[in-house]
Amino acid sequence: MIGTLYLLPNLLGVAAPSDVLPARSIALAQTLNHFIVETPKVARAFLKTLSPERVIADIFITACDPLPAAKAQCAAWLKAGIDVGVISDAGCPGMADPGAAFVALAHTTAIAARVVPLVGPSSVLLGLMASGFDGQHFAFHGYLPSKPLERDAALRALDRQVQSTGSTQIFIETPYRNAAMLGALRDVVAASTHVCIAQNLGAEGETICAKAASAWSETDRNRFVVKAPTLFLLGKPQG
Amino acid sequence: MIGTLYLLPNLLGVAAPSDVLPARSIALAQTLNHFIVETPKVARAFLKTLSPERVIADIFITACDPLPAAKAQCAAWLKAGIDVGVISDAGCPGMADPGAAFVALAHTTAIAARVVPLVGPSSVLLGLMASGFDGQHFAFHGYLPSKPLERDAALRALDRQVQSTGSTQIFIETPYRNAAMLGALRDVVAASTHVCIAQNLGAEGETICAKAASAWSETDRNRFVVKAPTLFLLGKPQG
Repeated sequence: MIGTLYLLPNLLGVAAPSDVLPARSIALAQTLNHFIVETPKVARAFLKTLSPERVIADIFITACDPLPAAKAQCAAWLKAGIDVGVISDAGCPGMADPGAAFVALAHTTAIAARVVPLVGPSSVLLGLMASGFDGQHFAFHGYLPSKPLERDAALRALDRQVQSTGSTQIFIETPYRNAAMLGALRDVVAASTHVCIAQNLGAEGETICAKAASAWSETDRNRFVVKAPTLFLLGKPQG
Repeated sequence: MIGTLYLLPNLLGVAAPSDVLPARSIALAQTLNHFIVETPKVARAFLKTLSPERVIADIFITACDPLPAAKAQCAAWLKAGIDVGVISDAGCPGMADPGAAFVALAHTTAIAARVVPLVGPSSVLLGLMASGFDGQHFAFHGYLPSKPLERDAALRALDRQVQSTGSTQIFIETPYRNAAMLGALRDVVAASTHVCIAQNLGAEGETICAKAASAWSETDRNRFVVKAPTLFLLGKPQG
């Protein structure tokens, strides 16, 4: 009997677990004893938040780095019939973290474990819903290049996609580069393209603003310069 | 004082609400009295599931079709300081339904209502997590063309994206065309591209299978011919 691989979403920031996690996701995190995690310290704090009385030292936690060792551990547990939880540092495992490698492992014919994705907060999904842009056709690009010339070229390419197909283009930026990205958006994106910026999605301090690139004022932009997790969306308002 | 627009995810199929909805999402659906919904009958059944004792006839429910009347009603409620919930027939509002039009309305300067996206099940997100493919670079295309020649051309274009960039390509199909789509995938997609098919995500009967296109047997495919909500993903296994 092969174990099951459960994909357990983490919180996205300061939030009550019951605000963003279904009771089933919470219960599985509370009862599983074996985890593959992005950062052990972060995962332990999450599990402690869900079960303040639990002895975290009794839980088997393996960091996903180095990957070969973590994959061997995950495979050994699943083959021994042990259910395994995958926890990333924020949001849904497999979205922008090493979690997908363990899912791919579970799908190999040598293991063929059941994979169960659990519901939880995803900044990409929450931002897409809250943008008012096309949610039927969209693309997520992760991080754009950090060097200004390449970043601006990437922004122009995304803007052309919006203008030619109407599909929503989504990306993230490391918080300390928010000010630079806000400036680049002002300088590069077509005036008629709409820009949605969403900060602290699914957590305390959630702030979402969507309007035409030409309608963004310096005051609007200054609200988002703060060092907080930020999602950027380019698109066309629907309806 | 302007009302708040809450985006309330619905269930994706037969599922206990606490399995897929956080307590906060459930509580808001139980306490809001004004809703813009995709199909009134479906929304009433959902609200009744969450609050069996509630008198549904006392709740104000406006269908999003015709759109101009629904937008006028939504604007009037928000301007009167009334909080409004948006509910689609399945999953997250704004993903593949008319919900985004009301979000875009709320973002207009004439209204400028706060938009709050709530956590719930999304088949696109759950399928992406469970695929083991790249979750940092992906695109969702909604429905592909239904005519065979155009559908096959679209599949070839997505396959080229996978082969050249490694990004995950996601689409859906109406359940009665599942058999035709499974045949097209067999005939059109490169042998080395991996195909993930996921059915009844976040609901009873959840079935997920991911493997190289060349490794899919007729037996594998026959599991997915049934008329159930189905998500298709093309990609590369991570790790």
